[in-house]
Amino acid sequence: MSDPSYVPGLENVIASETAISYLDVDREEIVLRGYELIELAQQVAYVDVAELLLNGSLPDAGGRQELERKLADEYEMPQALYDMLSAMPEEVNRMDLLRTGISALAAFDKELEDHSTDANRRKAISLLAKIPQLVANGTRAASGQFVRVPRNDLSYAGNFLYMLTGTKPNALEERIFDQSLIVYSEHEMPNSTFAARVIASTMSDMYGALAGAVASLKGYLHGGANEAVMYMLLEAGTPDELERLMLSKLARKERIMGFGHRVYMRKPDPRAVLMKASLEKLAQARGRRDLYDKCIAGEAVMLKEKGLYPNLDYYAAPVYDLLRIPIPLFTPVFLAARTAGICAHVMEQHDHNRLFRPRVRYMGPRGLHP
Amino acid sequence: MSDPSYVPGLENVIASETAISYLDVDREEIVLRGYELIELAQQVAYVDVAELLLNGSLPDAGGRQELERKLADEYEMPQALYDMLSAMPEEVNRMDLLRTGISALAAFDKELEDHSTDANRRKAISLLAKIPQLVANGTRAASGQFVRVPRNDLSYAGNFLYMLTGTKPNALEERIFDQSLIVYSEHEMPNSTFAARVIASTMSDMYGALAGAVASLKGYLHGGANEAVMYMLLEAGTPDELERLMLSKLARKERIMGFGHRVYMRKPDPRAVLMKASLEKLAQARGRRDLYDKCIAGEAVMLKEKGLYPNLDYYAAPVYDLLRIPIPLFTPVFLAARTAGICAHVMEQHDHNRLFRPRVRYMGPRGLHP
Repeated sequence: MSDPSYVPGLENVIASETAISYLDVDREEIVLRGYELIELAQQVAYVDVAELLLNGSLPDAGGRQELERKLADEYEMPQALYDMLSAMPEEVNRMDLLRTGISALAAFDKELEDHSTDANRRKAISLLAKIPQLVANGTRAASGQFVRVPRNDLSYAGNFLYMLTGTKPNALEERIFDQSLIVYSEHEMPNSTFAARVIASTMSDMYGALAGAVASLKGYLHGGANEAVMYMLLEAGTPDELERLMLSKLARKERIMGFGHRVYMRKPDPRAVLMKASLEKLAQARGRRDLYDKCIAGEAVMLKEKGLYPNLDYYAAPVYDLLRIPIPLFTPVFLAARTAGICAHVMEQHDHNRLFRPRVRYMGPRGLHP
Repeated sequence: MSDPSYVPGLENVIASETAISYLDVDREEIVLRGYELIELAQQVAYVDVAELLLNGSLPDAGGRQELERKLADEYEMPQALYDMLSAMPEEVNRMDLLRTGISALAAFDKELEDHSTDANRRKAISLLAKIPQLVANGTRAASGQFVRVPRNDLSYAGNFLYMLTGTKPNALEERIFDQSLIVYSEHEMPNSTFAARVIASTMSDMYGALAGAVASLKGYLHGGANEAVMYMLLEAGTPDELERLMLSKLARKERIMGFGHRVYMRKPDPRAVLMKASLEKLAQARGRRDLYDKCIAGEAVMLKEKGLYPNLDYYAAPVYDLLRIPIPLFTPVFLAARTAGICAHVMEQHDHNRLFRPRVRYMGPRGLHP
């Protein structure tokens, strides 16, 4: 065979055409179906962005109400699913629990093997309704606690945060959480989205593609980063201690999570800038200025030592901590938010499919005989 | 950004360097760590090939015994796993059941987050021991039947076939099934293996990577093909009826599964040639020459009408039917056989990792504002 060039990790290789999103490296903008992600986060709600991703346009007031009604209609979980999860060991990794739950949900979908645009959209809405409950209740089911029942009187984001914490959030908390879901909702072709498209390209179903994405996002080189950031922030009591901790990690050539990005970031991640402002507001409201100051100190260390800017995970982690979300659920919450984007990509893949089947460069021996 | 060329489905794009396997398109050979796959199928057993794939060399007699002992030591399944599966709806798709079971198995692995070569090899052996049981017993658990207990007095392949059918196979059946596992064991970079490597590249664990591979293999453009072949063969009672059925499908531009391959096959798939000979022997032994004749007739139709040769799935399907394997388990058995190859790829990815993170060509609008 011919020997085309090999790019490890497919860096800068175009894997798909898409109308869903784009990282504009030159302008450092994140584009979602023509809109700038940060403008969306400032002006609309997560359910609007979900509709934009899945349907191609922002809903009007009536369209948003209809989507919220459809989501509420899909809140009901199969009891058998919680029964299943209750057989899992209590200490199971929360991403493994979520992957297993999403995989099992396929068994309860009557139109599982219908990959038409309409059926896929209904699947996506069902998943958007059920995944927050899997995230919030999975742990409770696995440890034999009663599961929480979703509240139809709260917004989508308000209910999600309520289910995570057991407490109805105030307006500031709900808004900040909703914005975090928006900025996590879609990001072009990260590993998890790519895994989902690769799987969907055999004309396999949306649940399987999403289970693959959960598996991918779990890795510490991807979604696992937001939890790693929080453990580092907790390890240091003060800004000075954090600086010393980070310098010693750098001296030992340890990876520090929450900084930089493969594709872009010659300037600060616009998502991190938004979350940093949210952190300041929340820290103010909670009398936790110390946490904000610590994060600022860590940001300065990495810019000075490595020239790296914080990415979304670096500021989402302390925000989620102040929202009282348990740390092992940070990555599952990321996945829940990204569900809208991944489902949109699965739909696009099914609608314009070409099976992914690359080749290899063989580096092994030849001509052996048993 | 610059605009490199875009190849749909990454056709002929090199995604990885590997020392595991290679499709030599010019010679139409399938190379596994230097050996020709067909020679391996003729001369060694599946457990030898598993050792070759995972460890890099064929075992001697002592090495094979040691692997067989390790496999038997790992036969014991967590009871909680069967309890979980028993909560699944009885009619669940068998690949969805398998994906869910493999995903859940992660929760019972004490060294889950250790991605060293040694720990990954132990995980692979545990999966090779447990996946045949998940395949054979998953259906039984979901439908409330007693699960079958593996038999340590049988070979690996003999026990797998026993668990699938409930009957101890004779020597011919065991040998043919073992050969089928070998020819399904590894095939360079098909979609499922690629999905597993993409997922593993975030440094996520082997169970998640394999769950993604199951999701991929389920699709009818990939592993689902062997089941589709069998349903077509059953729809036609005679060679003449099969010819008419296939011609009418071709006239309606319907896809006929079990023929051709993206990468190679200007001549017959060597794996199909081997399985065809096995089918003839089995048909002879069972007095089912009619099934063999039907398959020959179908092969002739596709060569004449489309110039396409049968691939492995076309002859593995009737072989599995004569071995009394239930049709909905054909693709799960394929996955069980491919476990050795996929686990070898996950190990290679973890040992020489670079995160897969490609880019897109954006085809949507720009400059919109909410």
